[in-house]
Amino acid sequence: MDDIESNHQSKQTRQAPCVLFAGAFGNRLRARVTQAFNVIGPFAPPIAGHLDPAEAPKIRALVTAGNMETDAAMMDLFPNLDLICCLGSGYERLDIQAAMARGIMVTHCPEVNAGAVADHALALLLAVNRKIISADKFVREGEWHRGRMPPVRGLEGRRAGIYGFGAIGEKIAARCAAFDMQIAYYSRSAKPVPYDFHGSLQSLAGWADILMVAVRADAGNRHSVDKEIMQALGPEGILVNISRGSVVDETALIALLQSRQLGAAGLDVFEHEPSVPDALKALGQVVMTPHVGGGTLQAIEAMQDLIVANIAAFFAGHPVLTPVPEMKPLSAGF
Amino acid sequence: MDDIESNHQSKQTRQAPCVLFAGAFGNRLRARVTQAFNVIGPFAPPIAGHLDPAEAPKIRALVTAGNMETDAAMMDLFPNLDLICCLGSGYERLDIQAAMARGIMVTHCPEVNAGAVADHALALLLAVNRKIISADKFVREGEWHRGRMPPVRGLEGRRAGIYGFGAIGEKIAARCAAFDMQIAYYSRSAKPVPYDFHGSLQSLAGWADILMVAVRADAGNRHSVDKEIMQALGPEGILVNISRGSVVDETALIALLQSRQLGAAGLDVFEHEPSVPDALKALGQVVMTPHVGGGTLQAIEAMQDLIVANIAAFFAGHPVLTPVPEMKPLSAGF
Repeated sequence: MDDIESNHQSKQTRQAPCVLFAGAFGNRLRARVTQAFNVIGPFAPPIAGHLDPAEAPKIRALVTAGNMETDAAMMDLFPNLDLICCLGSGYERLDIQAAMARGIMVTHCPEVNAGAVADHALALLLAVNRKIISADKFVREGEWHRGRMPPVRGLEGRRAGIYGFGAIGEKIAARCAAFDMQIAYYSRSAKPVPYDFHGSLQSLAGWADILMVAVRADAGNRHSVDKEIMQALGPEGILVNISRGSVVDETALIALLQSRQLGAAGLDVFEHEPSVPDALKALGQVVMTPHVGGGTLQAIEAMQDLIVANIAAFFAGHPVLTPVPEMKPLSAGF
Repeated sequence: MDDIESNHQSKQTRQAPCVLFAGAFGNRLRARVTQAFNVIGPFAPPIAGHLDPAEAPKIRALVTAGNMETDAAMMDLFPNLDLICCLGSGYERLDIQAAMARGIMVTHCPEVNAGAVADHALALLLAVNRKIISADKFVREGEWHRGRMPPVRGLEGRRAGIYGFGAIGEKIAARCAAFDMQIAYYSRSAKPVPYDFHGSLQSLAGWADILMVAVRADAGNRHSVDKEIMQALGPEGILVNISRGSVVDETALIALLQSRQLGAAGLDVFEHEPSVPDALKALGQVVMTPHVGGGTLQAIEAMQDLIVANIAAFFAGHPVLTPVPEMKPLSAGF
């Protein structure tokens, strides 16, 4: 009985499409994909130097992440590549035009980790606003015996401007509303939500004293949070970025914080991760985390489940669940 | 004209009731009370040793805080004391029976800082859950170049049990709901709210994995959060206390954290403030702040305004705005 099953499985496995993992992505995802497909990788770059050339044509799907390079040259290594699945919502380092030219379907995991990212945005905002790091130090080092910490201006009534109003921006707004803040947003178009829409980022920053950067990063919005935008927040202003480091001009941010023209910042993302400028690290009014916003266990498991569901749907001949927006006109025809 | 005004003011001041400040309480409050009353104090304890005996009978009102000792002996120093106004919501070190026996009206500032305290509860919870302090250190010390932080289980779907469901507890619930948590509460009686009521703290702790302590501290609930209650939260459990240190058995808390039977804690209050046990300070899974929860500038200003309004109402012969609950049967007759 064991032999029959094992024989049956190995036969099934031989016939199953081959899925290349660009990263390790954890045992749970690998185990789940392995139930129905052959999984290979990850290989240290350059992949071509590590992959058996006989294997390349067998690869039908690639599991990768938005911050890993997936360019035309890499796609060309695999003549039968039909599907690329990105863990996470972003796919900024994937050459979407090259994929489209090759007819490769691309999926991502939109919204799945939006709640986790929004939670982290508030964690950063509250940590900055309540000076959690220096308060903890104050208690641990016994400063409390020598006096009290000066009071802070809390969040109540403060103006939170939300830049980008996709799933993450909307969830940030819902959380800010629970803290009795005023809320407005800037995005490409007004949405049917009970918050004020601003037609430009400049207008939003002029109104806001807290700017929550939640826009999807692309070539068009690089450094869109520039010196003028941040200056408009003012000396009590707070910048929170849980999007991508590229959206904020980090050099200008540092200069404004150093000269106290901007009050404080909470940053989960940086321009040259994992490198963070020493000048930023030297500032006490900044709370920094290592790009962990969307990476809760719940979000990771939900993203893994979506990867599995997309691969299964694709190779069963069904429409994928979550194509990237550029693929939507195509996906109807798949 | 100046002389006439100044003469008029000094005459008014001579006749105005005298208000003793037990603490400094800031220039803004003092300036506002001084507009209509004579203000004296604060005096270093013992007050009797510093106060001119001729002044004592002039004192009609005392402005104090809930964590400052106001006992029968102190009240007896002032034969004409009619009103005690406590800054803040709590009045745990005021002898309410002695005040009632003397017919002294006592006011406090309920709910005014509830939003600020609830904000801080979430600031602590998020800082603990997202490991903000170690994450910031991870970035600053360049650990990110050597790998990633392990993922955490986020707040989504977690069970927040709220102990005490007054103004603060209800505002904590509203904030937790925005983070997609499950919410239940224990208080003396069920409220018309969309959260599950538990009839005992033991029941709530058995259900919850996060316990938010928001109960008003009194002699009856000292150490009510004991070893068994905290053990019930489990090794991934989180305790957040923004109420008073007396409610939690601090020794048991330390032992459970040390033995990893309780996951983590966020503490704004301690049993012997400003002293915090070294054993607690040694724990990395604790975030500590120096009793600053309700002390935002917005809350402080709102409390000061309420103190001024209560004094003015009382001496104008009107009912005070916010008597402590024990005085409510009396206040109708004032």
